[in-house]
Amino acid sequence: GGESPCSWHEKVLTLDTMNPCVRRVEYAVRGPIVLRALELEQELRQGVKKPFTEVIRANIGDAQAMGQKPITFLRQVLALCVHPDLLNSPDFPEDAKRKAERILQACGGHSLGAYSVSSGIQLIREDVASYIERRDGGIPADPNNIYLSTGASDAILTVLKLLVAGEGPTRTGVLIPIPQYPLYSAALAELNAVQVDYYLDEERAWALDVAELRRALCQARDHCCPRALCIINPGNPTGQVQARECIEAVIRFAFEERLFLMADEVYQDNVYAEGSQFHSFKKVLTEMGPPYATQQELASFHSVSKGYMGECGFRGGYVEVVNLDAAVQQQMQKLLSVRLCPPVPGQVLLSMVVSPPAPSDPSFAQFQAERQAVLAELAAKAKLTEQVFNEAPGIRCNPVQGAMYSFPRVQLPPRAVQRAQELGLAPDMFFCMRLLEETGICVVPGSGFGQREGTYHFRMTILPPMEKLRPLLEKLSQFHAKFTREYS
Amino acid sequence: GGESPCSWHEKVLTLDTMNPCVRRVEYAVRGPIVLRALELEQELRQGVKKPFTEVIRANIGDAQAMGQKPITFLRQVLALCVHPDLLNSPDFPEDAKRKAERILQACGGHSLGAYSVSSGIQLIREDVASYIERRDGGIPADPNNIYLSTGASDAILTVLKLLVAGEGPTRTGVLIPIPQYPLYSAALAELNAVQVDYYLDEERAWALDVAELRRALCQARDHCCPRALCIINPGNPTGQVQARECIEAVIRFAFEERLFLMADEVYQDNVYAEGSQFHSFKKVLTEMGPPYATQQELASFHSVSKGYMGECGFRGGYVEVVNLDAAVQQQMQKLLSVRLCPPVPGQVLLSMVVSPPAPSDPSFAQFQAERQAVLAELAAKAKLTEQVFNEAPGIRCNPVQGAMYSFPRVQLPPRAVQRAQELGLAPDMFFCMRLLEETGICVVPGSGFGQREGTYHFRMTILPPMEKLRPLLEKLSQFHAKFTREYS
Repeated sequence: GGESPCSWHEKVLTLDTMNPCVRRVEYAVRGPIVLRALELEQELRQGVKKPFTEVIRANIGDAQAMGQKPITFLRQVLALCVHPDLLNSPDFPEDAKRKAERILQACGGHSLGAYSVSSGIQLIREDVASYIERRDGGIPADPNNIYLSTGASDAILTVLKLLVAGEGPTRTGVLIPIPQYPLYSAALAELNAVQVDYYLDEERAWALDVAELRRALCQARDHCCPRALCIINPGNPTGQVQARECIEAVIRFAFEERLFLMADEVYQDNVYAEGSQFHSFKKVLTEMGPPYATQQELASFHSVSKGYMGECGFRGGYVEVVNLDAAVQQQMQKLLSVRLCPPVPGQVLLSMVVSPPAPSDPSFAQFQAERQAVLAELAAKAKLTEQVFNEAPGIRCNPVQGAMYSFPRVQLPPRAVQRAQELGLAPDMFFCMRLLEETGICVVPGSGFGQREGTYHFRMTILPPMEKLRPLLEKLSQFHAKFTREYS
Repeated sequence: GGESPCSWHEKVLTLDTMNPCVRRVEYAVRGPIVLRALELEQELRQGVKKPFTEVIRANIGDAQAMGQKPITFLRQVLALCVHPDLLNSPDFPEDAKRKAERILQACGGHSLGAYSVSSGIQLIREDVASYIERRDGGIPADPNNIYLSTGASDAILTVLKLLVAGEGPTRTGVLIPIPQYPLYSAALAELNAVQVDYYLDEERAWALDVAELRRALCQARDHCCPRALCIINPGNPTGQVQARECIEAVIRFAFEERLFLMADEVYQDNVYAEGSQFHSFKKVLTEMGPPYATQQELASFHSVSKGYMGECGFRGGYVEVVNLDAAVQQQMQKLLSVRLCPPVPGQVLLSMVVSPPAPSDPSFAQFQAERQAVLAELAAKAKLTEQVFNEAPGIRCNPVQGAMYSFPRVQLPPRAVQRAQELGLAPDMFFCMRLLEETGICVVPGSGFGQREGTYHFRMTILPPMEKLRPLLEKLSQFHAKFTREYS
């Protein structure tokens, strides 16, 4: 009370008073390494002399930032939707105009500027359902089970938010792979849920082993209530593509142990290795028949950020829910409505991704050529990465079967580990920092994704253009050799 | 568990096992009334006979859904950014091309398809800072204190998330106006914070009274730890524009009582009443000098969804933080990085909104004409709304000084109240449902925003086009008269 303000007082919001869950959040993909990379770029611009001329950001799966060109058809349709005067322009193909008109008809006020319904434009949800049906060999998908989102991250957070409950020993536990994409650990920290780690088997190309799932689950039951199992397939950061038998085993395990399945399938278009094939959890689950097909709860996520299109900045994505309790689904709908709607331009791009030009359409040939060029180059870069790294002593890289990252294991000399500990850094953070300072190559330390104690890795995207990738891989290998000598 | 699955088991995720905080969330703006409106539209399309020919959605502040045309310049620049081939087209003005090129230069890979930094494109944050400086008569704004967001809602949720801590009697309490925009109550429920209601004074045109703030605060201190105060100015759903003296009093109160200020200023362009003027909290706070200017923590929110542009679907917005603790600000930055970045097209539109064409630019005349036409029509509709409602017996409407809603008070006969209770409905929900069924007019019951016990209101936007608005207002007034007769 009183009218005279005291002359000084502490802030309301300090590290001590703020949300402790937020404090616990970590997100390595944009952590200290990336902040330092930004600084270095600025120093280079200011003319500061460095042992390199540019910083190469191989830290994040951002294809267009690495120079990949957008797919023409996607941008044509979006431009038409943004500025419908262009529908009269002779410079746009007829099929792009038809697509744009169809989408605008489905928008409030025939404009991208209106909110959509919270679950996303109905027409586009129908397009997504048709895509899923085609992808899964005719297994039906219901548009009412599809929710468009602000990138896949948003949808993953929404589903996790529904799952979080309890306190102390009844707190929700969520099984996530190690190594993982750190959205999961960050979201679980923020939501105050318990992260339950299961390890992928590096010796078997990052395979997922049900015995390891069982071990993780049993140990977790001592201190929390495990209720969900997250799978990333194709793997991020690990690049493996799961075999169908493995998916079946995971589904049986989830069913027996009563775990909600979350399948992060944003790299479903990114499969490179011969003999590897993407199998959706939805398809496998359905083909396994009852009780799995009729009872196992599943949420599957996809995005416009990855694939061949790489439209990260538009923040488009979706989740399909399967066997979700109807009342819970209403609650999910309500929760989404508070955010009003996902960004409409991202919805429009998603519509193109799931219903691209057909062979009879004027844009088909160009679309197909652009798409294939991107995917073929990614496949070549995946192979090159594995090959160059495996020629380097002290670096071992599993095959990059899919997604867009390598996650090589590096041997670090004991003296380097010791030096890192003196500096209060994870050994692989120390390695990656030195790499950045000396070569301009920005990759993310394995400790940001999780790894077996005593092993060290880094995640590097395969996205740099081919002409830059080979020298990059060689430079990195040479740096590792030099670093090893330095600390031997 | 053994290998043979049990033949049936309960879902993992049910109403009983899901996140209880999510269950408590309510969001009336897209609640049961709106779901029924959707059904009615479908019935009309199927040829079902109704006492009306179209559903009029006056429930949500969505200008373009109500037929408002996008501002040409905004869409030209965005189309150029989406599809840069258009930079060679003679159909776009030079200044739009310059703006688009400037933005593309600031994007990763010169494409909207790359992620931006998590706080938003640096150039656009600088544009926002310049806008704030102009708006506030030269008071400096630091781009590093500006975070672009997925609409204002996203930024509001982020700041609330930082503020939430404690349990039981130390749980964070947040003061919000009643009536409020239900994003606030929904977010507080989701975050498990305590909603502390302070009432706006309907008798004095929804004025905010510090004595009432103090009452609310004192009562709340018994059972929680109030740490933040939310202000919506201009008001939603109430349409008042706060006087400068009132803002000063609120700031003094917040400082003395150690409350973090959250100023929802998304309607800052929407001020209609003569004598009313928008004063930003940032400006008033700064002009009050120390200790307020140097210590009072503030977050101010803005959006591309409202104003004259009404670009809701793009989900653009920003928050400016003032006097935030540096370590907390780092935590905020980290939290945002988990979401990667706000949608880039929304960032682009925001850039246009904060740096529109200058008088010397070729697009200036058309831009200015379109902008003024929208704002002038809104002003006329605000006035008309107040006038028609106040001519109706049993309806009383405060002046719509700003924003885009009226929130009239309606008298409901005791027998109608009783009938509603029998049906398990809030009386104003009963009224609004009947209104929808009989006239096709969709408005939101006051109970969704909060109101004094025993009073009834509804929120109606002033967005329907002028030629529809007058008949709409009259139809609504007549329905109220009929409803009153029916239950007398």
